[in-house]
Amino acid sequence: MKHDRKSIKPLPPKHRPYKVLSSEYLAQRPWFTVRRERVELPTGAVVPEWYVFEFPDWVNVIAITREGEFVMISQYRHAAGETRYELVAGCCEEGETAEQSARRELLEETGYGGGRWEQFMVTSPNPTNHTNRVYTFLAVGVEPEQAQHTEAGEDIEVHLFSREEVEALLADDEIMQCLHAAPLWKYFRLNP
Amino acid sequence: MKHDRKSIKPLPPKHRPYKVLSSEYLAQRPWFTVRRERVELPTGAVVPEWYVFEFPDWVNVIAITREGEFVMISQYRHAAGETRYELVAGCCEEGETAEQSARRELLEETGYGGGRWEQFMVTSPNPTNHTNRVYTFLAVGVEPEQAQHTEAGEDIEVHLFSREEVEALLADDEIMQCLHAAPLWKYFRLNP
Repeated sequence: MKHDRKSIKPLPPKHRPYKVLSSEYLAQRPWFTVRRERVELPTGAVVPEWYVFEFPDWVNVIAITREGEFVMISQYRHAAGETRYELVAGCCEEGETAEQSARRELLEETGYGGGRWEQFMVTSPNPTNHTNRVYTFLAVGVEPEQAQHTEAGEDIEVHLFSREEVEALLADDEIMQCLHAAPLWKYFRLNP
Repeated sequence: MKHDRKSIKPLPPKHRPYKVLSSEYLAQRPWFTVRRERVELPTGAVVPEWYVFEFPDWVNVIAITREGEFVMISQYRHAAGETRYELVAGCCEEGETAEQSARRELLEETGYGGGRWEQFMVTSPNPTNHTNRVYTFLAVGVEPEQAQHTEAGEDIEVHLFSREEVEALLADDEIMQCLHAAPLWKYFRLNP
């Protein structure tokens, strides 16, 4: 289907939701809340098992110091069995705004705070099977405010990188976590 | 930790894997294969429930016609309850290379084929709890080869967009699926 080229941004696509024929929770744990649903498509086709993962919203931060350095972390990621450079990231807790969560995570994981904050990007980790959103913040002019203060289940190293170093890592797909690569590529596209 | 600035790309971070104390499968279904593991961090902390989602590798394609139009799709995404513009995407099937999977998905979902193909990006959907990779291909000069031929569980509309239209959607975060936004932002950063 061709779109009208007079307006630059295409109109939203046709919305043809599925009908939920049945739904049951398989698990309701903090990191593992899953529903199995039987759904019917507008085409009439029935998919007997659609798995929906419920997660709280997630946040991450592109944090840049007054000296122009990017505050990054590295940590082991168990499912992939790898350790890579990443943005500071975490979960929205009950009663927090996304920005409050992002500020808390930056402070806990790196000790950095302050600076000018703005919401920079919103994505879905995977709208097929994840209910949640990922909010990315851009924090410019952050400074060391306290010592790192991680939780028991975290083992995180902090790194300060130049813009060129972050771009070199990105270019080789070494910032592998897609939820972090997307806002970083957006940042460098908009700030070339 | 500061890095040596003489080499532009930082050395890999320290790798401190967890020890798996126990592991059991909770489910082994095509779209839902999950292990629950009890793990011990190098810090000595024990996480009693770490959920690992096993998925096959996934693929997607930035497909551009001879006329310079981007071949995009839209489809309802059930967990998020939304319909957005997306890249053509799918799963690697047994015995296929990632490029073969991507070519097959493009042909099935849109009818487009041919062109010059290259692997453009590799990401992880989420290395914390996903075992798999996402391979993005860039296919330039694709042409309509056959009718769309979707599976029973698919309801997909095909769209041809100009570069400006895709950039306008991206700028407003309307290509919401992170696995698709990341390679598109990378493409526009590298091809400004």
